[in-house]
Amino acid sequence: MKPKLQFWFEFASTYSYLSAMRIDAVAEGAGVDVVWMPFLLGPVFAKQGLKTSPFLVIPDKYSYMEADIKRLAEERGLQFSIPPNFPQNGLHAARLALIGLEKDWGRDFCRKTYLAQFDEGQDIADKAVLNTVLASCAEDPEAAFAASVTDENKQRLKDRSREVDRLKIFGAPTFITEKGTLFWGDDRLEQAISYALRDA
Amino acid sequence: MKPKLQFWFEFASTYSYLSAMRIDAVAEGAGVDVVWMPFLLGPVFAKQGLKTSPFLVIPDKYSYMEADIKRLAEERGLQFSIPPNFPQNGLHAARLALIGLEKDWGRDFCRKTYLAQFDEGQDIADKAVLNTVLASCAEDPEAAFAASVTDENKQRLKDRSREVDRLKIFGAPTFITEKGTLFWGDDRLEQAISYALRDA
Repeated sequence: MKPKLQFWFEFASTYSYLSAMRIDAVAEGAGVDVVWMPFLLGPVFAKQGLKTSPFLVIPDKYSYMEADIKRLAEERGLQFSIPPNFPQNGLHAARLALIGLEKDWGRDFCRKTYLAQFDEGQDIADKAVLNTVLASCAEDPEAAFAASVTDENKQRLKDRSREVDRLKIFGAPTFITEKGTLFWGDDRLEQAISYALRDA
Repeated sequence: MKPKLQFWFEFASTYSYLSAMRIDAVAEGAGVDVVWMPFLLGPVFAKQGLKTSPFLVIPDKYSYMEADIKRLAEERGLQFSIPPNFPQNGLHAARLALIGLEKDWGRDFCRKTYLAQFDEGQDIADKAVLNTVLASCAEDPEAAFAASVTDENKQRLKDRSREVDRLKIFGAPTFITEKGTLFWGDDRLEQAISYALRDA
């Protein structure tokens, strides 16, 4: 059994995008299995007294974030621009990701959803956008969509927010090793991988 | 002339401590000159609607910061613990640093002040603590202290806060190249150095 590393991500999160696009390759090279854990940042920020992304509260930090991610994306052969309606509502995408991650198309769906948003400038709150992504990766897109909106699946995402509280997650991306060591931010991914090996 | 990189730091800032202890060595290896720029974060945070360190506003982030810095400090052969009265008042230390950085003892004073706070657990708002640091590095500690509390020197620190606004600095440590490219956080130091060479 390879050591596991949980990858907690939110679709609206710009730094989660950077991690989502590289984590499987980095982890595979190190012999670590990644467990993709979609969640919603909204309730986390609300607990912190915020009604939106913390970047929107501090304009200079928002501008810096954009420049910082553009630099990192360029180094990694990715495109990045702030999408319309930032921060976008990632609710439907997260529900679909929960379904896909139990099948074999989940990670592909996640990466393509991130690209639709941050590379192509589409709005992932739009179900038509998600359906296009879904059609490109899921075997039965209609069944996947239907499964994503059952009460049971909606409850799974809500339950995940309680797990986020319990784990003391305060932002995204967050990486958690099998022993519970927590790392925050794309710039801690390599360190998280090395602790995943150490904590196994 | 070597390319220059400005290093903006606040004495109370835990991540500034990490950078202060390594920036000269990293920059020297790359052929870059560091310009040490002490400033106060208080007015920056006040502009963001905060009355104290952002870490104190989000308890889970505060706990994470402590664990994160302990890990990084250990890797670098440093000690770290959250000091009493965090965040400490760095006003007197910043005024003294302005004087020292015009002489040859400024960087030594800065590093020893950081160690007094984050390694030895002393309170750098206490003038007796600063006097002990000063005595270990300045040639004429009494003259240095007198120079630090002149109206002229107090005004220099106030003027620096206006420069911080103009440069859109929103946290510490911040690194700025000669062309004005800004990097935030100890984890961007290596990238800042490479841009200092590119922007020269």
